[in-house]
Order: sequence, then structure tokens, then C-alpha cells
Amino acid sequence: MKILAITGALRKESYNTQLLRAVKEMAPEDMEIEIVTLHGIPLYDADEEDKHGVPQSVKALQDKVRQADGIIIATPEYNFSVPGVLKNGTDWLSRSGNPFKWKRVGVMGASQGPVGTARSQYHLRQNLNGLEAITMPKPEIFVASADTKFANGKLMDEATRKVIATWLNAFKNWVAKKP
Amino acid sequence: MKILAITGALRKESYNTQLLRAVKEMAPEDMEIEIVTLHGIPLYDADEEDKHGVPQSVKALQDKVRQADGIIIATPEYNFSVPGVLKNGTDWLSRSGNPFKWKRVGVMGASQGPVGTARSQYHLRQNLNGLEAITMPKPEIFVASADTKFANGKLMDEATRKVIATWLNAFKNWVAKKP
Amino acid sequence: MKILAITGALRKESYNTQLLRAVKEMAPEDMEIEIVTLHGIPLYDADEEDKHGVPQSVKALQDKVRQADGIIIATPEYNFSVPGVLKNGTDWLSRSGNPFKWKRVGVMGASQGPVGTARSQYHLRQNLNGLEAITMPKPEIFVASADTKFANGKLMDEATRKVIATWLNAFKNWVAKKP
Amino acid sequence: MKILAITGALRKESYNTQLLRAVKEMAPEDMEIEIVTLHGIPLYDADEEDKHGVPQSVKALQDKVRQADGIIIATPEYNFSVPGVLKNGTDWLSRSGNPFKWKRVGVMGASQGPVGTARSQYHLRQNLNGLEAITMPKPEIFVASADTKFANGKLMDEATRKVIATWLNAFKNWVAKKP
Repeated sequence: MKILAITGALRKESYNTQLLRAVKEMAPEDMEIEIVTLHGIPLYDADEEDKHGVPQSVKALQDKVRQADGIIIATPEYNFSVPGVLKNGTDWLSRSGNPFKWKRVGVMGASQGPVGTARSQYHLRQNLNGLEAITMPKPEIFVASADTKFANGKLMDEATRKVIATWLNAFKNWVAKKP
Repeated sequence: MKILAITGALRKESYNTQLLRAVKEMAPEDMEIEIVTLHGIPLYDADEEDKHGVPQSVKALQDKVRQADGIIIATPEYNFSVPGVLKNGTDWLSRSGNPFKWKRVGVMGASQGPVGTARSQYHLRQNLNGLEAITMPKPEIFVASADTKFANGKLMDEATRKVIATWLNAFKNWVAKKP
Repeated sequence: MKILAITGALRKESYNTQLLRAVKEMAPEDMEIEIVTLHGIPLYDADEEDKHGVPQSVKALQDKVRQADGIIIATPEYNFSVPGVLKNGTDWLSRSGNPFKWKRVGVMGASQGPVGTARSQYHLRQNLNGLEAITMPKPEIFVASADTKFANGKLMDEATRKVIATWLNAFKNWVAKKP
Repeated sequence: MKILAITGALRKESYNTQLLRAVKEMAPEDMEIEIVTLHGIPLYDADEEDKHGVPQSVKALQDKVRQADGIIIATPEYNFSVPGVLKNGTDWLSRSGNPFKWKRVGVMGASQGPVGTARSQYHLRQNLNGLEAITMPKPEIFVASADTKFANGKLMDEATRKVIATWLNAFKNWVAKKP
């Protein structure tokens, strides 16, 4: 089972990227997770697309989405919604053949605030609806107060690790289309 | 009364930019509208911000927001939400002193689809909530089937022009803090 | 294929109930649709539930949901969201064993306004997410200006009938788990 | 300053009603808060309204909303959205002259879950947008894990009491139209 995990933040030590590293490390043996960032995806400008077509960086990521059995997206929350960087990524990915169509997707997020990206995850879910992805309804992962749960790039919080273990089990079934 | 109008699309002949041009042309005499695009605002990367601070292009736009009596934002709709370009713009604008705080804002949008950006306008409103803007609840402007309403860069649809006239009147009162 | 269609309005001549009647009439031969209203479901009060348990009217509807292969919900839009009557219905239905879990669901809606319940459908979708339903992402049905499209309880608008035919085809596959 | 506080739950010992009691107890001297529940407001049925008009219980509550200088709404979260009881209440309140128009409103909520009604508060905000209320953007109150913070009907959690004190100060200014 090949899983592509997209982090919605560009910051090298982003809590969301760290969260995906924890997910990857805890994944079951038959689940191979590749973590990618959105570095190199330009801002979407329809005039540029008319002139130059879909950029190579976007095409490469579209291929990765297409080849994956399932997708994980970890989203930060900026001003009560998805970061522009992540939204811009899906804007581009949907051009010239939307690779998310009917793809099984799971969402999660980490933030320093009290609601752990609850606000942005539902905007992301509506966005994924527009992309015709089939997004796992539950369980969910909201990592609140992330600054107290990670240290030296590693997830130290035991309760969060348990949540991830449960989530991974459900997600494996989800990708295998059960249900 | 100085109004800053931000278009959420980079395309030169974007329907949303054309919509703002119609709004500007129809504005009452004592309302001066400046239309700006988000060209030149880079993708937000916290590592870059740490190294280089807030870019000059962002600072210049923050100043414009600060100096305006009111703000209009016209948003396209991509995959059921706000374009990444627009969300990225507000991500940056909120850095190092959020100029939207308590600013009076009006939103609108145009799309070729049947709901005229209804989906993205409510994501934008939640985003503006996070920015502590004070957004006019009603009336609203949803320009559906935009491809049939504009010609040669001009808004030709009489019904939409009436909607805009009513909206401008309400917005003028809104910016003047009535209520 | 047994489908349960729930209308979110109590009004006898509700456009949403009429919409479901059109959907039922146009359904393929092997799809049997039963339309139900939420008449008789009381307002949810946890104190009443503690004293008297789940009411018989709710249990009967839970059974119908459980026995259906798929569910259709038609929602009006009141003040930019789902009617209280419909939300109250799902509040009750989720008590003592949630019959929506992993159930295949399709949503639609009709209103006299310009966006055809686009605002309420996305609130309903988030609600269904909470119920762990698996909701069809697309196609969608937004019947705007409903007062011009129905006459004598019948859907007269040819364009809307085409939209419904396409939708029914997709929904049949959705319920059959393709995908 | 007269404030009407509406609790979205009917349960007598609802955490949201308890939250409003704490808010009332901590209010500044010149702010008088009346807490009301939605008991006695029937389910909205347009046919019933046609026959019998707006019920007396609704008219009485409309009057209270009209006479208040500001409104507080405390919302539970059921299945990721506002309870049907609360939504049904605003559905009725908006009939025959919407008393929320341009009324200053603050929202809050308590739940046993991890996000403290973050999901339902944003649906409530969109609903209030439809009612043309002017809703305070920030600060916000999300009382998560409410079962650990209240005892014997009283809010015991010191951190939450501090959040409420800050909120009350901001809300007082908000109702006084600053800004």
C-alpha cells in the first residue's frame, strides 16, 4: 500500500511535517509512506498557464498522487483556514486532469492553538469535496498546543501517539475500500 | 472615502477584476476606489520570513490596507473554496501587525458556474473573521454564469448592475459605521 | 436497490419534497425510492431522553435508514444554513447507535433564492461527516429560483430534469460502491 | 447595558447553560444579563405558520432580542454542527421582522470533546451572517473537556474564568460599538 503524505507548510521544522514523520514511523509494515512538501509549486496564474502550460513540478506531483493508493494531507491553520500554500497546491494539482478524483484521502493537522486546526480541516474537506476525493470521515487528528508535544523534531506526547495508531488502522481499511 | 479593492485572481482578464472595475465605475462620487492585484506577493514560507522578514511588496500592501477606510475583496472559486493566491495574500498581510483588525470589509465574487462563488465567499468570510475584520453581512453579490455577463472587459448585464448599485449604497453606510 | 429520501422541510408543498418526487419518478427501474418527512420527530432534549429513551418515531426512522442501501437528503436553506427541523432530525437519528455510519448518501436542495441552497448543502455535508456517512462529492444539484421551475407540484424545468438524470446515474454507482 | 443570553441546549444541567451562568456571574456591574432557553419554541412548519401565525412564545423571544443591547449565544456541538434546537430557534426568530438585524452578538460554546464546539461555532456564525447580526470576531471561547471544568453547576476551571473575563471586557466594548 503506497501512501503519499502532503504537508501544507513550507517551514522545514513545521509541526505538520513533524506530525507526518511520526505517522510514517508508526505506519504498519505493509504501508509505505512518502512525505512531500509543496516547494517549487508556483502561484497559480491562469495567464502563465495559458502561455506555458502546467509546470513540470506540478506534473511530477500529479503523477505521485495518481500512483498512490491513498493520500494523507496535514494542514496548518492560518487565520481560521487552510494556508494559501496548500490551497494553491490543490488549485494546481486539479489542472489538466484531476488526480484526486475518487482517491481515498485522510486529513489531519497540528497547531500551537487550542483547537488543533479544527477550523482549517473543514475547509480542506470542502476543498477535497470539490476535487471529488473520498475523504475518511472519522477518526480525526487535531494536535493542539503542538509546541508542547514535539521536541527535537519528534512527537513525544504519548496520548497523541495512541490517537495516531488508531487513525492509521482506520486509514488502512479506508484505503483498502473497507468501507 | 478611500476604498481598497483586492482581486483574488492574477489573470489579467479575470471576471473578478472586471467586476471590481464595474464597481469602481459605478461608485458614488465621494467614494474613491483603488483596485490592486496580488502580483508580486510570494508564497508564504516561515523560514524565508525568519531570514528576510516581511517582503517589501507585502509591506506596501499592508500600508494600503491600513490607509483605506474600507476594503472590498472579489474572490473567484477554485474547487469549492478561495484561490490559494488570495488566501496566501491574507496569510502574508496578517504578519507583523494585522492591518485588517476592525477594518470594514465587503466581499463579492464572480464565476462561470451556477452558484457565483457562494462556496468560496463563506470560506473568505471565516478567514476575515480570523483577521478580525468587520464584514458586511448583506447584501451579497454572487455573479453566476459570468461568461454570459461580461463582454470586452465590461459588465453588460443590467440585473447585475442593479445589484451592484444597491450593494454600493449599503457598503458606503457600512464603511461609515452605520451600523 | 432501496433508497430512503428524507426531505428537510415539513411544509406539504415544499419545493424540496417536490424535488424528491421528481427524483423518485425519474429513478431507474431497479431503484426503489421511499420519501419520508420528519413529522413526528420531537425537539431533542437530553433530559427527556434520559427519562423516556429514544422515541418510537425516531426508532422507526433509524430502522428505515439502517435498511436502506443509500440515502438522499433534500435540504432547504434558512438563514444560510440547514433548517432546524432537518438538523434536529439527524441529532435524534444519531442517538443510541448511529445508522448513518458508512451509509452512502447523496445531497441536493431547492430554494427560491439565487444559489439554490449552496450554503446549506455544505453545512449538511459537514454534519454528515460527523455522522460518518460517505457522501457523494459530485455531481451536485442546486435548484435555484425554484418558484419558476415547479408548477402544480411537478418539476417543469427541462434543464433541471437533465441534471437529475445525470445525478441519478452517478448516485446509483455511488450506492453500489463504484467507487 | 442589557444583554440577552440564549443557550442552545434544553438540558437543565447543560454545560452551555452553566457557562452562561458563569458569564452572568462575572459580568461587570453595568451589564445586566438575562439567560433564556428555547423551551416552548415549536418546530418550524410553514404550513402551521400559514394557519396560526408566529406563536406567542416566539414573539415573546423576538421582543427580548429587540430590547437587548447585545446578544450572547452559547452553542453545544452535535455531529459537527449547531444543535437542531438552536437552529430551529433562529429559524423562528427571523420570521415576520428579523430582530437580529444589526444586533451586536457574541458566540461561545462548551463540549466534552477536544475542540470545544469549534465546528459548531462557525456554522452559527454563518447563520448569524444570514440574520445580518454583527458578530464579534475575537476573542473566542471554546470550553473543551467541559466535564472536567464544571462541578455542582459551577465553573471551577481558573484558566477558563480568565478567558471569560477577557471576553466580557471585549464584548462590552463591542456592544457599545467600539468598534
